Amino acid sequence: KFEQSDQLLPQCWLVVRVDGRGFHKFSERHEFAKPNEPRCIRLMTLAARRVLMEHRSILLAYGQSDEYSFVLHKDTNAFNRRASKLASLIGSLFTSAFVFNWSICFPDRRLLYPPAFDARAVAYPSVRTLRDYLSWRQADCHINNLYNTAFWSLVLRGGLSANQAQERLKGTLAADKNELLFSQFGINYNNEPEVYRKGSLLVRASLLDSQVDAVAEEASVGDNVPDVGEASVEEVSEIAAKVAKAEAESASTLLHIDIIKDKFWTENPRILPLDSQ
Amino acid sequence: KFEQSDQLLPQCWLVVRVDGRGFHKFSERHEFAKPNEPRCIRLMTLAARRVLMEHRSILLAYGQSDEYSFVLHKDTNAFNRRASKLASLIGSLFTSAFVFNWSICFPDRRLLYPPAFDARAVAYPSVRTLRDYLSWRQADCHINNLYNTAFWSLVLRGGLSANQAQERLKGTLAADKNELLFSQFGINYNNEPEVYRKGSLLVRASLLDSQVDAVAEEASVGDNVPDVGEASVEEVSEIAAKVAKAEAESASTLLHIDIIKDKFWTENPRILPLDSQ
Amino acid sequence: KFEQSDQLLPQCWLVVRVDGRGFHKFSERHEFAKPNEPRCIRLMTLAARRVLMEHRSILLAYGQSDEYSFVLHKDTNAFNRRASKLASLIGSLFTSAFVFNWSICFPDRRLLYPPAFDARAVAYPSVRTLRDYLSWRQADCHINNLYNTAFWSLVLRGGLSANQAQERLKGTLAADKNELLFSQFGINYNNEPEVYRKGSLLVRASLLDSQVDAVAEEASVGDNVPDVGEASVEEVSEIAAKVAKAEAESASTLLHIDIIKDKFWTENPRILPLDSQ
Amino acid sequence: KFEQSDQLLPQCWLVVRVDGRGFHKFSERHEFAKPNEPRCIRLMTLAARRVLMEHRSILLAYGQSDEYSFVLHKDTNAFNRRASKLASLIGSLFTSAFVFNWSICFPDRRLLYPPAFDARAVAYPSVRTLRDYLSWRQADCHINNLYNTAFWSLVLRGGLSANQAQERLKGTLAADKNELLFSQFGINYNNEPEVYRKGSLLVRASLLDSQVDAVAEEASVGDNVPDVGEASVEEVSEIAAKVAKAEAESASTLLHIDIIKDKFWTENPRILPLDSQ
Repeated sequence: KFEQSDQLLPQCWLVVRVDGRGFHKFSERHEFAKPNEPRCIRLMTLAARRVLMEHRSILLAYGQSDEYSFVLHKDTNAFNRRASKLASLIGSLFTSAFVFNWSICFPDRRLLYPPAFDARAVAYPSVRTLRDYLSWRQADCHINNLYNTAFWSLVLRGGLSANQAQERLKGTLAADKNELLFSQFGINYNNEPEVYRKGSLLVRASLLDSQVDAVAEEASVGDNVPDVGEASVEEVSEIAAKVAKAEAESASTLLHIDIIKDKFWTENPRILPLDSQ
Repeated sequence: KFEQSDQLLPQCWLVVRVDGRGFHKFSERHEFAKPNEPRCIRLMTLAARRVLMEHRSILLAYGQSDEYSFVLHKDTNAFNRRASKLASLIGSLFTSAFVFNWSICFPDRRLLYPPAFDARAVAYPSVRTLRDYLSWRQADCHINNLYNTAFWSLVLRGGLSANQAQERLKGTLAADKNELLFSQFGINYNNEPEVYRKGSLLVRASLLDSQVDAVAEEASVGDNVPDVGEASVEEVSEIAAKVAKAEAESASTLLHIDIIKDKFWTENPRILPLDSQ
Repeated sequence: KFEQSDQLLPQCWLVVRVDGRGFHKFSERHEFAKPNEPRCIRLMTLAARRVLMEHRSILLAYGQSDEYSFVLHKDTNAFNRRASKLASLIGSLFTSAFVFNWSICFPDRRLLYPPAFDARAVAYPSVRTLRDYLSWRQADCHINNLYNTAFWSLVLRGGLSANQAQERLKGTLAADKNELLFSQFGINYNNEPEVYRKGSLLVRASLLDSQVDAVAEEASVGDNVPDVGEASVEEVSEIAAKVAKAEAESASTLLHIDIIKDKFWTENPRILPLDSQ
Repeated sequence: KFEQSDQLLPQCWLVVRVDGRGFHKFSERHEFAKPNEPRCIRLMTLAARRVLMEHRSILLAYGQSDEYSFVLHKDTNAFNRRASKLASLIGSLFTSAFVFNWSICFPDRRLLYPPAFDARAVAYPSVRTLRDYLSWRQADCHINNLYNTAFWSLVLRGGLSANQAQERLKGTLAADKNELLFSQFGINYNNEPEVYRKGSLLVRASLLDSQVDAVAEEASVGDNVPDVGEASVEEVSEIAAKVAKAEAESASTLLHIDIIKDKFWTENPRILPLDSQ
């Protein structure tokens, strides 16, 4: 009787965001590549896919850095819309799948300690406010990735210390960082892989329209099980088979595209209803 | 700005309960012994210990069946007392440690899919209401374990079907089940291991008084790393070493005792202040 | 620090409903006419007008029976959108104005004791859900008024006791009650005054379009200060002047119209934005 | 279904604080005496008494300045402990009684417009935290009254402007203000009436012990109906009779005493249980 009701407002779109705790330390301890560790992105996406597979009221998920946001339909009555139930279950399953799949993505590196993710459930009253939220996360992805690309270029290729690199970037605008990357390291930021610049969008395949399928197929190419080093072939193929099956069942499509502009949403009107935008 | 405050009332004792989702199916798929799987109890306790190790504002934890309750001091300001943050982080870490330690407790059995736990944070305004909560969980442990012991005796040793066993137990009282176990199977329920009848209490060792240490020592005998079958010795010993270290750091003591009566709390007055009971 | 945040979700339409407590007894003690007491309706509307006058973020109010609902714009930041602040202040001012204006509407009847109203603040995520709420209240008005008209006809003109009237109406549908009123008492329910059948809608005049003004003017004819019996002319005229001024400042228009159908909302598109319906 | 649960935590003491809105302007428009208007204090207390009379789960109320706090027993289940219901009903009744009783306390002054009070409900988990709250309000009373006494002495008797008086008091401590009052105006602050220095405590008479009754009786001497100027004798006596009856029914005792120190609570142990302090 001391448990208090925390039902989220009906007819609002629900977002559960899962966020790594202490992932700076975690990425250092596990020697992640800088500025981006493709195997960790893949692991995050595997974990997100598992969540989409088990929780069918989720329409889409957007991930970047050490976070993933899951969007539930405004009509859902999953878990009676209780905030703590939704957040804790999605967060727990995401964490569980992250640890469970570790050895698929990092076959040659042992997980040193169990990581944790926090999770929170938030209600958005309209498609407009929901899209503003998603745009905010993708803008965050852009800003952080541009910064990190410049920072680690200065450190790894420019020979600067972390402090010097930080000093060098202080107060610079996006244009300045683009210029710095191009002039000093010959990097055209716009040619960097979209998975890093745009983050990862997982959408229920059934909600996508045909014109996007091509992109989807291409995007999922990078999503195969990697070579697995010292682990036995049987082990890996067994797990890979399970993952493949799970992915088929969940039938979510992985995209690395702009979700701030209207284009994607207009071309796929069944994901979020256009008339309530 | 759409995220709503969910701060738990100051000066209340906080309980985060972590609860297995779909553990009936999980225990069948992983062929758990009936009525109790000691390796799963051990795994749950390893996971709970990890939580106690990382979250120092937790005073004690009580576990039974597929659940664990973590008690935080009423003065804690951990995570600004935000319900979703506390519940999701503790639930996530518990889950993570459960999957991470699986192979220690089940060296010869592969984890087939990632399990999930929900978690909720609840405030209790007094020691009295907190103790009522803990008593309720231990009473639940007793009722369920007595039922399960009788049920599985009827099925595994009495040759009844599940339906028949259920029919046989319908409407029986505790005394009836005790009698049935004794007369039909020669089982004196009160001689069953306390870990099953009382559940598991983890207490910060620093809060315990000496008279309990003996019990604690005895209780922790069953808590060693088991033989590990086909996994390599190096692997297991490496992990076991880490676990040992973690356990030392967390310094929690495992007990299987009555927490409904006053005795334990009176003998260890530093855990919960007596004067506010 | 024990006060907990109760901010209502941003970008939702807010409704504060004020509801009479124990008004059955109140109407008996003050000998209200049955089934409707026009002076009480007028007093409720005067009180609601005062609320509209002081709280400018209120767009409209709808009242019937002993309740009034106040609608605030979804963009409002009034009182930081705190539920208890909004509900208690609007409820308090409504109550205050009800008692303050009593003698204007009941110049010949003393207020016997101070009445109370409860108040609650609720968020609606869309124009659709807000209109559903308003439709629900107007449907409630219709159902109650039809029942009360039939009930009191049976009692006051048909000579039935309260119990007999209740028995007679048990299980009857709207059509049955219409038929009963017409055949037994010669009452065509659809000719009953709209103020009783539709309730009272107060809208900020500045949000109304011209085609409605005519209706509004007509509706407000019945809204003048009544003859005042034994109270002195000076007293009443002084108060009436204040009320007139207040009404002018608040500039809300009183209507007794259908708000369930689209017509009113389509003809006055500045009240609730059509494109988000 | 959009209404969200706002039940206050069980087994916590509940406080509803009612607070005047815009009472600075209200007191100026109604030409209240400075620094304290005894008739307004009386009116506030009459209103609070009415609340105690109707809501029997209230144990005591403490008022000062333009606020009153009502304390409900931790075991109460009044209105299902819903925060908005409790706050709005108590706030509404207080407001209603304030307007209703205006002419009793201000027989020669017309109420110019309907005043409003906000209200909030807060849960306190222990007698300790509840007493801290009450101490905070009484300390607030002391600080404000000392300041106001000094300020208005400077303005009304010292001939300073409001700005000059404010300047003069800036940065002064309690001792400084006491000294200023004594040396400049011959006022010994400790001899000022306790109703101003301590505020007003209303306690259910049935919870008080005998040694306090004497004080109570004395305190209530000042609580009679005042001379009523131009209002007719019949009118006033009729209302006064009702008030007297109501007061008798509610049977609350008015005290102006220290509630910060333990003395009062220790001598009247049935109000708040000593053993849970």
